[in-house]
Amino acid sequence: MTLERPTPREMLDVALAEAVTGAGEGGIPIGAALFVDGELLGSGHNRRVQLDSPIHHGETDCLMSAGRHPASVYARATMVTTLSPCDMCTGAILLYKIPHVVIGENTTFLGGEELLRSRGVTVTVLDDARCIDMMTAFIAAKPELWHEDISV
Amino acid sequence: MTLERPTPREMLDVALAEAVTGAGEGGIPIGAALFVDGELLGSGHNRRVQLDSPIHHGETDCLMSAGRHPASVYARATMVTTLSPCDMCTGAILLYKIPHVVIGENTTFLGGEELLRSRGVTVTVLDDARCIDMMTAFIAAKPELWHEDISV
Repeated sequence: MTLERPTPREMLDVALAEAVTGAGEGGIPIGAALFVDGELLGSGHNRRVQLDSPIHHGETDCLMSAGRHPASVYARATMVTTLSPCDMCTGAILLYKIPHVVIGENTTFLGGEELLRSRGVTVTVLDDARCIDMMTAFIAAKPELWHEDISV
Repeated sequence: MTLERPTPREMLDVALAEAVTGAGEGGIPIGAALFVDGELLGSGHNRRVQLDSPIHHGETDCLMSAGRHPASVYARATMVTTLSPCDMCTGAILLYKIPHVVIGENTTFLGGEELLRSRGVTVTVLDDARCIDMMTAFIAAKPELWHEDISV
């Protein structure tokens, strides 16, 4: 039996659940999940507030959660994130040569998508209303925290 | 009294001491230090092995050690690293808009220096023999660990 691979929207649901968990912890509501061959390898969420950490964004926290892997594993991976990846997370995707990135939305923040594409990464933007609404509400509620997270 | 600011080589000494600490822990010998207005704000080293973490490179571990800061602090910062920064650490420097990067060496590995310069970052490469020798010996001793760290 061959199991069907999850759709981009189904993978996004995992990242979105992470973002909701982060919000419940008083954190910045951005989540990510890493799939390899259709299987979930790890997931995570922004933990700037929770860990007092400027390096635990959704994607990097997800990579840490997924653990150490050789390049051959990342070569079959898809990174799914609720928000367009910032420069740091763009760089993490490039470092590990993850070939496909699925993005919930890039309306509230546009990250390094052009750089990703220029380096051969396939970028899929879902324009997910749940992700847009969540970030819009967060930015309105805590603009200073959001500005700290993207250093503006 | 105005204290003199440390020279690039003196700042590199702090990053190099971190790299040596990392080597002593059985880790990958890359270290970094963050200076603001000539004062040390934090330092760190690659902890892939120590934390089983793919996101704790020298520069990112240093940023985590330095803690959370607004953009106005990073705007006065210099990131010092023993080795040319990988794509992830390049992205972290860009995210936080750190205007100056001092690099021990880029002989054993050349990272995102061109991207940094294209985004307005001043990049100073010291061609430090101690850094070159340390990385050369490490890569010869543990090539698989090094390849994992740069995902090749």
